Amino acid sequence: MDKHHSLLEAFKQTKYQVTGHGSRKIQILKSALKDRAEQLESDVYGKGKIIEDFQEKMAAYLGKEAAVFFPSGTMAQQIALRIWCDQKGLRKVAYHPLCHLEIHEEDGLKELHHIEPVLLADKNRLIQLEDVVDMEENIACLLLELPQREIGGQLPNYKTLEEISTYCREKGVKLHLDGARLFEILPFYEKSAAEICALFDSVYISFYKGIGGIAGAILAGEKLFTEESKVWKRRHGGDLISLYPYILSADYYFDQRKGKFHQYYNEAKKLAEFYNQCHAVSTRPSEPVSNMFHVHFDAPKEEIEAILIEICQTTDVGLSGYIREVSKTTSFYEVSIGDLYAHIPNEKLKKVFRLLEEKMKEISQQS
Amino acid sequence: MDKHHSLLEAFKQTKYQVTGHGSRKIQILKSALKDRAEQLESDVYGKGKIIEDFQEKMAAYLGKEAAVFFPSGTMAQQIALRIWCDQKGLRKVAYHPLCHLEIHEEDGLKELHHIEPVLLADKNRLIQLEDVVDMEENIACLLLELPQREIGGQLPNYKTLEEISTYCREKGVKLHLDGARLFEILPFYEKSAAEICALFDSVYISFYKGIGGIAGAILAGEKLFTEESKVWKRRHGGDLISLYPYILSADYYFDQRKGKFHQYYNEAKKLAEFYNQCHAVSTRPSEPVSNMFHVHFDAPKEEIEAILIEICQTTDVGLSGYIREVSKTTSFYEVSIGDLYAHIPNEKLKKVFRLLEEKMKEISQQS
Repeated sequence: MDKHHSLLEAFKQTKYQVTGHGSRKIQILKSALKDRAEQLESDVYGKGKIIEDFQEKMAAYLGKEAAVFFPSGTMAQQIALRIWCDQKGLRKVAYHPLCHLEIHEEDGLKELHHIEPVLLADKNRLIQLEDVVDMEENIACLLLELPQREIGGQLPNYKTLEEISTYCREKGVKLHLDGARLFEILPFYEKSAAEICALFDSVYISFYKGIGGIAGAILAGEKLFTEESKVWKRRHGGDLISLYPYILSADYYFDQRKGKFHQYYNEAKKLAEFYNQCHAVSTRPSEPVSNMFHVHFDAPKEEIEAILIEICQTTDVGLSGYIREVSKTTSFYEVSIGDLYAHIPNEKLKKVFRLLEEKMKEISQQS
Repeated sequence: MDKHHSLLEAFKQTKYQVTGHGSRKIQILKSALKDRAEQLESDVYGKGKIIEDFQEKMAAYLGKEAAVFFPSGTMAQQIALRIWCDQKGLRKVAYHPLCHLEIHEEDGLKELHHIEPVLLADKNRLIQLEDVVDMEENIACLLLELPQREIGGQLPNYKTLEEISTYCREKGVKLHLDGARLFEILPFYEKSAAEICALFDSVYISFYKGIGGIAGAILAGEKLFTEESKVWKRRHGGDLISLYPYILSADYYFDQRKGKFHQYYNEAKKLAEFYNQCHAVSTRPSEPVSNMFHVHFDAPKEEIEAILIEICQTTDVGLSGYIREVSKTTSFYEVSIGDLYAHIPNEKLKKVFRLLEEKMKEISQQS
């Protein structure tokens, strides 16, 4: 058994886990279906009550004219950018160097749509207004990811968002929101989803991250835009005869969790404080602006792995199921607060962090 | 209420329906999940026991080295053709003029992959060996759809299949099977799925047609091919974090129905006989070669619609939920035999066809 595997196993066997909503078992789908009538009719190729009702519900929530359910955000976002590029007759968009489309999609945007991205800002920081203003290339669309996941879930301040939005409108550049974690940022901005989305021409949101559904995404915007997205959805092979397993679970967990993101946010801030009090441990951002943050260790992956396993085994609390190398002497993991955090007794948590502090000191004395 | 709607409503309200497995209600998913343990872990981005086991099971069934589960056939087939085109450095394929890729996918193959199709044969008949041999263009891949759905589900004889396969191998042209209805053709050919698939380099099969699952497809071939298809699956946005709702239902209904296609085939032949005995009614093909066929009427859509509604209301048997215009004076619908047919008492069926015969004679005397 390799070490990575044994950390994951140790994590799974703990009674209390700090991150997430629990493991992705099929009980998640069974629960979402339990109270639905057996006679409820499937959606059929994008039509029918199940899909139409949910699309309308999400359009209203996001304050957009229309919304379309997609099997994945990868598909929804490539299509959004393609539509804006076609409209402008220019196959160029801008986004952050650590954008999902750039690092997680096998270059689908380039290979399928022949769209060339301009990478804005350094990969270690957020896109600011100046990055947009100083851009030399003409682009059809700017994509902003809120929060910027790969750097710990950071957020620009709201004024920056407004300024970028105003600037893009003046320049005739479409602004697209990668809102995979839109729910997660509302407490920090103290805004509604519709208020945030009003700054953007098109918006994608995900249902399996903070919401904890099975899979699926919504793409929202003006009706002309969403209607065109349905044509591309068929071209991509995403216009399945039935999407209801994802829609019903998205709807179920949306209703169940949409009011809980303020709690997750507060818990994330508290947990980050615990981490930041430990020797050679720091969070990024230092104070979370959503339910997520990254934990960085001034120690090699292997040493932290051993500590995490020991914490699982001695406290029955799992901090993380994995740890990644940053350099030979540093490592990190991501934390996303979900339903599970609230179940951990405070005393347990304190014990965990006393142990972490002790172990971090031990390894720094050894080296 | 428009007439089309009222036929569909009348059809849905009948006790007995001649076609299909029953309406697409969410009970289909609930049944497939019922005996699965709540603690069963989801697949995650193409990994995990649920997806890997099913892929292996289907690879073995199809006699191929490897298989990949896709959310849709649209996605799977475009990707198959793309891989073969890339391998040959030639963006040209050949298929029937009524191929799914040509008429139902909003030109995804052209718009996303820039692959140009050569249309073989007339749209009213099957592709024969001569069509392939006489083709002037160089192509990377030939796609055969078995049965050719849009012309009533016709099939070439097995010798023709073998000859086309041999010819393609000699010429270095890849042969791809659109086997959306592969299960349905095995009784006619008296072959196993693996025997049919051995003639092809790549094969796609569907789980929501004859099998009656929710959605989803398998693409099978050599491991190098299927591994490349996974990269494209991600690019298309089809590498969902969880595909298990489709996989578990595909598996469940595959086990339940894979042994029933001989029965459906025999029932289709019997039903086609009933139709062909009626005045101004004929089936295409005249003797079905699978569980499906088309029913053609020498009468306008509106008149047949009224007759179908009357049959629903007086016999409690639904022959079809829709009827389509072919010309001002002719019309047709498709029949696919599934589980429901066996529930209809023979006396009922005879009454239905006596009534159909009577009504067809009436309208031909009027005109």
